[in-house]
Formats: sequence, structure tokens, C-alpha cells
Amino acid sequence: MKVAVIMGSKSDYPKLEEGINLLEKYGVEVVSRALSAHRTPKQLAEFLEEIEDDTDVIIAAAGKAAHLPGVIASHTLIPVIGLPIKSSTMDGLDSLLSIVQMPKGIPVATVTIDLGLNAALMALQIMTLKYPKLKENLKLYRKEMEQKVLEDDKNLRG
Amino acid sequence: MKVAVIMGSKSDYPKLEEGINLLEKYGVEVVSRALSAHRTPKQLAEFLEEIEDDTDVIIAAAGKAAHLPGVIASHTLIPVIGLPIKSSTMDGLDSLLSIVQMPKGIPVATVTIDLGLNAALMALQIMTLKYPKLKENLKLYRKEMEQKVLEDDKNLRG
Amino acid sequence: MKVAVIMGSKSDYPKLEEGINLLEKYGVEVVSRALSAHRTPKQLAEFLEEIEDDTDVIIAAAGKAAHLPGVIASHTLIPVIGLPIKSSTMDGLDSLLSIVQMPKGIPVATVTIDLGLNAALMALQIMTLKYPKLKENLKLYRKEMEQKVLEDDKNLRG
Amino acid sequence: MKVAVIMGSKSDYPKLEEGINLLEKYGVEVVSRALSAHRTPKQLAEFLEEIEDDTDVIIAAAGKAAHLPGVIASHTLIPVIGLPIKSSTMDGLDSLLSIVQMPKGIPVATVTIDLGLNAALMALQIMTLKYPKLKENLKLYRKEMEQKVLEDDKNLRG
Amino acid sequence: MKVAVIMGSKSDYPKLEEGINLLEKYGVEVVSRALSAHRTPKQLAEFLEEIEDDTDVIIAAAGKAAHLPGVIASHTLIPVIGLPIKSSTMDGLDSLLSIVQMPKGIPVATVTIDLGLNAALMALQIMTLKYPKLKENLKLYRKEMEQKVLEDDKNLRG
Amino acid sequence: MKVAVIMGSKSDYPKLEEGINLLEKYGVEVVSRALSAHRTPKQLAEFLEEIEDDTDVIIAAAGKAAHLPGVIASHTLIPVIGLPIKSSTMDGLDSLLSIVQMPKGIPVATVTIDLGLNAALMALQIMTLKYPKLKENLKLYRKEMEQKVLEDDKNLRG
Amino acid sequence: MKVAVIMGSKSDYPKLEEGINLLEKYGVEVVSRALSAHRTPKQLAEFLEEIEDDTDVIIAAAGKAAHLPGVIASHTLIPVIGLPIKSSTMDGLDSLLSIVQMPKGIPVATVTIDLGLNAALMALQIMTLKYPKLKENLKLYRKEMEQKVLEDDKNLRG
Amino acid sequence: MKVAVIMGSKSDYPKLEEGINLLEKYGVEVVSRALSAHRTPKQLAEFLEEIEDDTDVIIAAAGKAAHLPGVIASHTLIPVIGLPIKSSTMDGLDSLLSIVQMPKGIPVATVTIDLGLNAALMALQIMTLKYPKLKENLKLYRKEMEQKVLEDDKNLRG
Repeated sequence: MKVAVIMGSKSDYPKLEEGINLLEKYGVEVVSRALSAHRTPKQLAEFLEEIEDDTDVIIAAAGKAAHLPGVIASHTLIPVIGLPIKSSTMDGLDSLLSIVQMPKGIPVATVTIDLGLNAALMALQIMTLKYPKLKENLKLYRKEMEQKVLEDDKNLRG
Repeated sequence: MKVAVIMGSKSDYPKLEEGINLLEKYGVEVVSRALSAHRTPKQLAEFLEEIEDDTDVIIAAAGKAAHLPGVIASHTLIPVIGLPIKSSTMDGLDSLLSIVQMPKGIPVATVTIDLGLNAALMALQIMTLKYPKLKENLKLYRKEMEQKVLEDDKNLRG
Repeated sequence: MKVAVIMGSKSDYPKLEEGINLLEKYGVEVVSRALSAHRTPKQLAEFLEEIEDDTDVIIAAAGKAAHLPGVIASHTLIPVIGLPIKSSTMDGLDSLLSIVQMPKGIPVATVTIDLGLNAALMALQIMTLKYPKLKENLKLYRKEMEQKVLEDDKNLRG
Repeated sequence: MKVAVIMGSKSDYPKLEEGINLLEKYGVEVVSRALSAHRTPKQLAEFLEEIEDDTDVIIAAAGKAAHLPGVIASHTLIPVIGLPIKSSTMDGLDSLLSIVQMPKGIPVATVTIDLGLNAALMALQIMTLKYPKLKENLKLYRKEMEQKVLEDDKNLRG
Repeated sequence: MKVAVIMGSKSDYPKLEEGINLLEKYGVEVVSRALSAHRTPKQLAEFLEEIEDDTDVIIAAAGKAAHLPGVIASHTLIPVIGLPIKSSTMDGLDSLLSIVQMPKGIPVATVTIDLGLNAALMALQIMTLKYPKLKENLKLYRKEMEQKVLEDDKNLRG
Repeated sequence: MKVAVIMGSKSDYPKLEEGINLLEKYGVEVVSRALSAHRTPKQLAEFLEEIEDDTDVIIAAAGKAAHLPGVIASHTLIPVIGLPIKSSTMDGLDSLLSIVQMPKGIPVATVTIDLGLNAALMALQIMTLKYPKLKENLKLYRKEMEQKVLEDDKNLRG
Repeated sequence: MKVAVIMGSKSDYPKLEEGINLLEKYGVEVVSRALSAHRTPKQLAEFLEEIEDDTDVIIAAAGKAAHLPGVIASHTLIPVIGLPIKSSTMDGLDSLLSIVQMPKGIPVATVTIDLGLNAALMALQIMTLKYPKLKENLKLYRKEMEQKVLEDDKNLRG
Repeated sequence: MKVAVIMGSKSDYPKLEEGINLLEKYGVEVVSRALSAHRTPKQLAEFLEEIEDDTDVIIAAAGKAAHLPGVIASHTLIPVIGLPIKSSTMDGLDSLLSIVQMPKGIPVATVTIDLGLNAALMALQIMTLKYPKLKENLKLYRKEMEQKVLEDDKNLRG
């Protein structure tokens, strides 16, 4: 089980951390890279070639005119999950539209702005096709989420 | 290889057709259903239970306050691809935000507004994890897209 | 007189508090619950079944792709008031559109983003149909609002 | 059972018609008026005074800077359902925000842009508090919607 | 020379202060009132009737679904300048659209979000029709603005 | 009584026509010009100088990045009414923001997108400061609007 | 004098045609290509390498999540002018933000949505740095635009 | 090599500083001016006339209804790079649309909101047409950016 996490800038890392931790907790090997579609296109292409045969899912995070996920998707057949990052202007709308509105033929699986955890969970769900035992982990995770809500609910009801 | 395509309204079908055809062309069994998160929640839940064990990917399309993909995602661990449908107001922004902005814990893999083909291609890419031979089809598909662009390019150059 | 207040996350509580206090001040029994459309759908459905016969109005608050009010509305005929909550991105537009743009057949009565008080006042106005004496409270409330504006006005005029 | 339907312009009528028909089908007396918050404020105020004691719900529809629902809400304690109408610019966003974003103290129960049917259904749900037998009609209506979806579903499955 | 400044809430005052000071500096009598279109409609109407004959311009400021300027405009033939106030959500877009998008027949002269000074300057420009000597003040004011920019420019050039 | 109507492009004329007709009906001399802030800045400046002393109000209409009203406002102390024109993209939002969001010191009185009639009415209201007899025309106009609504209302009630 | 015009899809050609004609009229050699950042990345890279030494400006047009201009900009030091193309959803906002909001280090010179002529004129203005005689053509062009406005103005004045 | 940097307000300087430093580091003479399209139009026109013959590129930065870049573009054939500045409302959307959506005939080369560095880099790329040796600096700059990303990448991989 192997996921590549590629971010356009190291500063996006905090928004990915919780998701990376979850992946590793469930035994997934995570390779984290800071590579830019525009500043290091060659290294990006090389890295993508390298991982083509042994990586299950790619998570790509970027802000502003976020081309990284789409450019990665054009290089590989590995499913690419796009994580829009909110920057100092436009409230995340620029990165969301730059990632999700991919033209015909090269889709990116886009998730909630700034929520690296959702990217990780989608990666895990996709990997259940190949590693069905992951389903148990995910069922447990959902159980835990449910428990957390129920506890909050209990506290609220006093 | 099995994909369930669920649409909130039968009127969404034309935006899904090209994608469904592609899936079937590549030998994927497609089960198309018109089920609503709000109007037929029980039948939706039953259908999801039915398919839990033998379906690889779910594609869910809906317009306006498009809850269908997210509600489906909460019932299953099968990866759910959300297709926002543009309706007569708000230019697709309402369905896009209602699908992609899922809260922590239950992601939906959102693709381009109104582009059912991108939903199908993402489904195929996800299924390559389990059916690696699909990669050949997808490589061919990309080759064909490339050829089409190159022909257009040739015509343009005259 | 009974109102159920359901929030997608306990963190939404501060935006509901003022409204809950007003309801209780006017003798309405308030049942506050933290239940999620996606993380605890079963408990949500059970709770809704439980309250179907003795609850007058439901207030449902949620952020991001806020499905909670719409999902509740699909389970019950009790009028559902939707309160969009602003989260860290998209300035509340995502939750507003996810709540108000409900498809044909299952409406949600949506009120001002983040204003739990408006949700409570709408609940009270709806309950006047069954408990006409509430009208006196509401008239008084409006009188007090009017007085507050007039005092401000007086201070402003110096 | 009595509902007042007030529209800012007679041209809004087609978007209300389906809802008005439904209300009348279920035995609700509907009084339809074309009255403007800005052009006929006096007649509007008089009409609102007239109906204060014998009307259960008000539906108010308006486009552009749609003040009508909010102005009505400030004159009465009857619950006001606001229906945003899309005009030739701004895709309905102007009327939606002008109706739903009411300041503290005077809420308007806003429903889907251009969907008069949803306004009517919300009116009926609110009236169930006083006329519980309406619940049977609404249950039947939901049953019919469900049947319609299921027929579409059947046709789709071929 | 007389201008009425009406704000929907006393909390809008800081955004109007600079403009009010300018008006008074130029000898304009300013009557500042905190009156709400929804909470004190009667007092608002009375005040507007009172000032109809001796007031030159009205400045009306409000936030969220800002109906105040439009409602005032429907009561009077005095030119109404609308000042949209940014509140905690929607970045001022809600109040801007609620003020500027007035339907046919009742215009509001809308100025920059949160810039009370621009409202005051527009009031002064309008009053030059009746009090031509104000032109001298405004010419001087523009001269001062010009000087300020030129000083900044000088500092920048070092 | 004299109003200058300046449009950025002759194609904006149809959106101004109804307003121009109203102005002329009430005895206002209207000078209509097609002059561009960017393509004919010299002629624009000359025209503005020419009319500075005998023109009461300027109406300026423009689409896209609509600089015309603001540039005119910077050349003159005559009140400038800005009319945003919707073009083929961005639904009028670009011209609205380009006109209304003028920086500190040079306001433009902005009215409803595409509604030349509202620009004309605001011009008339402003001119009442100097020509009080216009108030009678405007009162009559409002009376006629009121009558039109009441007739529509009558027809609607059947 | 040489300009490369690259479009993401042959269907963008009509929006570029007027600009291409202008460039050719002024003696600029135009090479038009239909190449996609995602579908033909290799051919795009090859073409860019080919033209690096003899091309003055690149115009790149694309719709939806328009990565083409930014990806081109990352491959070359030739100035890249980005032309956002409006597609069937989101009114051009998606392509505008995807092109203009480029991250630090790789700018794209973005012009008006759908206006290929503006892209061509910016290309010409940039080329004046190397071919000063183009200034005469551009002066003439502006003169012609001015004449066209003045003729329209003349017709309008009757 | 000469670039004029014109800002609508001295307060925009911090967003331009990094770009100005880069230009000067590469031997470009930078003339920085604070001049307003609306408050100092005469001085702006004079300055533009002054620099017409010896300046290669103009960078113009402004916020809100940012007319400065477009007005400058109408005065000169020197390429104008527009830098939208985010102000306290509307998240930069107002200045972006006011700069980029220029009407037919007078383009502005718009870059990322608030990113003065991108404006400077585009100026340098444009100047390579006349000063080819700048290409070496820009290649080096890109190399350094690449190195910075690769170092971040190395740190990330640990």
C-alpha cells in the first residue's frame, strides 16, 4: 500500500499532516514530496515515472491557480486526488476551480478545501479495491467518528 | 468490474451518457439508477446495501443543493465520485459546493461540472487498482485523445 | 411547545445559544442534539422518528456542504429551519447554497448565515399557528427591539 | 386554511403557479396579490393589516434587490416564506442574498430560487401545526414523488 | 444645507463618522439617526415625512440584506445615497446587491462598501445644484487630495 | 435642466433609451454621447470641460472593466450616476464592481445593472434640488407606477 | 516578428481569429497550434523548445481549469499572454482564476475573457520593444478606434 | 532598461517592494511613483508623456475599482502590467475584474492579486525582447527557484 503526497509548496504541509498520519497509522507507505508543476516540472515528471508502477494513489495539494493536481493527472493513470489550498486571497475559490474544473479526458478527484484528512480517507477508500482488509480500518474509523459525535451529543444533552 | 451510476433525477441522464458508454465499451457492468437522497432515501439505502459487496465505484450526479453524493458516501465505503450538475440558476456553483465541500470524515471525489465522461474516467482509473488490465484501455484512450488533438492541430496549421 | 435543535457539530453551539435561550425564556421545551447526517445517520433517523409526533419545529445548523437540514427534511414533515454556518473557507456561501437550494419537493426554510436567533424567532412565529398566545411574546420581543433601536437613536442624536 | 401569496411583480406569477395549484388542491384558500414594497407600500401595509388575523402563512416572491419578503416580515408575525426570483442579471444571487440575509430579529424563511412549489410545500408543512390532517396530504404527496422517482428509475433500468 | 444620515444600526456609525465630519466642516447641518426599516418602520416613516421639505439629501447605511436605503427611497423623492456595510459574512456582497439592485422605478445611488466619506462627497456634489458655492469647497477638497497624493509621491521618490 | 448621457459604446444605447425618453418627456435637455474613457480620452475631457457650467447631472454607462463613470467623476464636480452594463461574461459583476467600488474621494452614484430608467429617475431626483417643480412630475410618475401595480394586482385577483 | 498562438482546443479558434488577423495584417508571422497541456504535453514541450529562440510572444487560450498558459509559462522565458475562454459553466470565472492567479515566480499576462483581440494588441505592444516601427501601426490602430467611436458618437448625436 | 512602477496609493508599496528589488538587482532602472488616475490625472498624464520614449514597461498597482492600469494603458503604447491589490472588502475580486476585464482595444497584462514579484518577472520577460542578456538572469532566477523547491523537498523527505 503506497500513497504519494505531492504539495506545490512546503507551506501546504500542515494541511496535509493529519491525513498523512492516518495513512501511516493504517500501514500505508507515504512518500511526501514538495514539487512544483511550474518550478520543478522535470523533477515532477521523473518522480511520477518512478512511482508509476508501485504507487496506488496520488494526493496533490496546491493553492491559487493550482495546476499541480491536473498536471500530475496528465502524466499518470494512477488516480489523483486534488486538495485545494486556501491562500491569502479569493477564499480558496481560485484553487478549487483550478483543480476541479479539469477539461474532458483528464479528471482530478477533488475534495474539500484545506481538508487533507478527506484526501487521505478518499485514498484509503480507493485502495480498498486492491486491499480489501483496509475496509476494516475504515469501518473502525467511521465507528470512532460516530462515537465522537455521540459523545459530543451526550455532553450537549447534559 | 462493476460501477453503479446514481442520478438524483432522470433528467441528469444526458450528462452521464457518454461516460456510461465508455464504461460499457471497456467491459464494465454499469447499473444506472435514478434515486433521490430526499425523495427515496429508503430505496437508496437498500440499493447501497445490495451493492456494497460487488460494486467497485459509485458515480453520483445531482444538481442544486446536491446532497446525493454525500449521502451515498455516508452509507458506504465504496469510493463515491460526485458529478455536479448545472441547473437553471447559480451556474453550477450550488451543486459544486454542495458536493465538494463535504465535512471532515466523509469525502466525495468531485469532478468537473456536467462532465460525466470525467466521472467515468476517474472510475476507470480507480478500478485499475483491482483490474490492472484496464490500464491498457486507458492508455489507448489517452492515445486517442492525443491523436484527436494532433489532428485538430494539423487541420489548424492547414 | 417543543423545538428540536440539531447541529452537525458541537462547535456550532455558540451560534445557536442566543436562540435556544430565547426559546426557553418563552416556555418552549428545547431538545439540543449534536447529530451528523453523514457520521451518525442511524441515530439521526431514530431521533427524528422519536420526535415526529410531539415536536413542532426543527432547527438544523451545519457548515460547509451542509446536508443536515435537507436530510432531516426528507425524514419528516415537521417544518425544518436551516441555519447556514460559516466555516474557515468560502465565507458561508457553501453552507447557504447547500441548505437553501433544495430540489423540488423537500424545502428547507433557510435563515441568515450564523444567526441562530433568527432561526429561533422563525420557529416561534411558526408555532403561533398552534399556540396563539406566543404572539404576545413575539409582539413584546419586537417592542423591545424597537425600544433598543430607539435608545440607540436617542444616544446617537445626543 | 389560508395562505397569502404576494409577488413584487405580476411577471413572477409563472414561478408561483405550480405551488398555488397545490395549495388549492389541498383545500387551502389562496389570496394572490401583486404588491410592491417600494411602489405600493401603503396598499401592502393595508393588505397585511387586513389578513393579520385570518391568514396562516405568507409567501412572498421578488427579484433583484428583493425587499418584499423582509418588509412584509417586519409588518406581521405571520411566518413569511421568501421566494427569490432570478432576473436577467446576477443569476438569482442578488435576490437570494436580499431575502435570506435578514438582520437580527426579523427572519424570512427562504426557499430555493425560482421554485414556487417548495414555498407552497413549506407553507403546508407549517400549517400542519394547526391543521394536523394536512399531514395526510403531505404524506401522500411525498408518496407520489417517491412513485415518480421510482418510475423514472424503472424506465432508466429498462 | 441639510443632510439626514440614517443607519440601520448604531454600530455602523464608525464607518459614517469621517463623512459626517466633512459635511459639518462645510456647513451642512447633519441629522444622524439610527432607525431600522424592519424594527422601527413607523418611526422611520415619521422621520422621513418630517424631513421631506427641508432636507437635501439622505445617506442610508446598512449591512446584510440591507433594505434600509431602498425602503427610504420608496418613501421620499429626496435623493437617497446607499452605503453598503460589510458584516461578518459574505464580504459586503450581500449588502451591496441588496442596495444597488433596486427594481425599476425606485433607484438608490450606491457608493463604495464601507466608505462613508464617499457617501458624504456624493451628497455634497448633489447639493451643489442648489448651493453652487459648495463647489469651491469641493474644489479645495480635491486640491487637498491631490496634494496628499503628490506628497506621498514625493516621499516615495525620496 | 440638462443631463449629459455618456456611454462607453453605442451598443449600450438600448439600455439607456427608456431613461432618456423619460428625461425628455419631463422637459430635460439630454445630450447623448458615445465617448470612451480609453479610446477617446481627449474628446471626453473636452466635452466634460464644455458642459461643466451648464449641466446638472451626468449619466455614464459602461460594461466590463467599466472605468468611464469613475474617470468622468475625476474630471468634474457634477454628480455622476454610473450604470453598469452586463456584457457576455461575468453576468454584470465586473462592471458593477468597477463602477461602485471607487476609491476614497471620487464617488460614483451607482444604480441597478442594465436599468437606464433608474439612472434617469435618480438624475431627476437630484435635479429637484434646483428645479423643485420636477417633484410634481416625479410624484405623478410614482403615482403611475402605483397604478400599474394596482392594475396588475386587480388582474391577478381576477 | 513572430507570435505563437496556442489554444487548448480547436473550438477556441473563433475567439482568437480577429486577433490573429490583426497580427498578420501588421506583418507578424503567426503560428497557430491546437495543443493541450494535459492531452499532448510532449508535443507541447517539443513545440515550445522549437520556438524558444525565434518567437517573440506566445498567446495561450484555454477554458475551464485553464492550465495551458501557466504550463507554457513554466517551459519558456518568452512572455506568455493568457486568454481565458468562457465555457458552458461558471461564466469564465474558472478559466480567469486558473490563468491569472499563478503562484510566485511564473507569471502569465492575463487579458479580458474571450477577447482574442486584446491578446493580440498586448503582443504587439510587447513587440514594440524590439520592433519600434510597430508603434506606428499601433498608433494608427488607436486612431482608427478613436475614429470609430467618434463616428458612433456623431451618429448618436444625430 | 527602465521600468516605471505606478501605484494608486503609497500604501500599496509593500506589495511591490520585492518586485522592485528584483528589477534593481538585475540592473533595471526603476522609477516608483504614487499617482492616482482620479486624484492626480494631470500629473499622471504628464508623467506618462515624459516617460513615453525611454521606458520599457509600466507596472501599475491599484485596489478596489482599480482604474489606474487601464487609464495608463489608454495614454501609452508601452506595455502595462496590472497588479490587482486586495483591499478590506471583496477579497481582491473587485480590483481583479476592474483591471483584467478591459474593453476591446486597450489591454492590460494582469498578474496574480497582491504578487508584485510576478509583475516584476513579467516586466523582465518582456524586456528580454530588447535586452536578450536578461534571459541569463531569468534562467538563473528560475534555477534558484528550482533549487529552493528541491531543498524544501529534501527537508520534507527528511
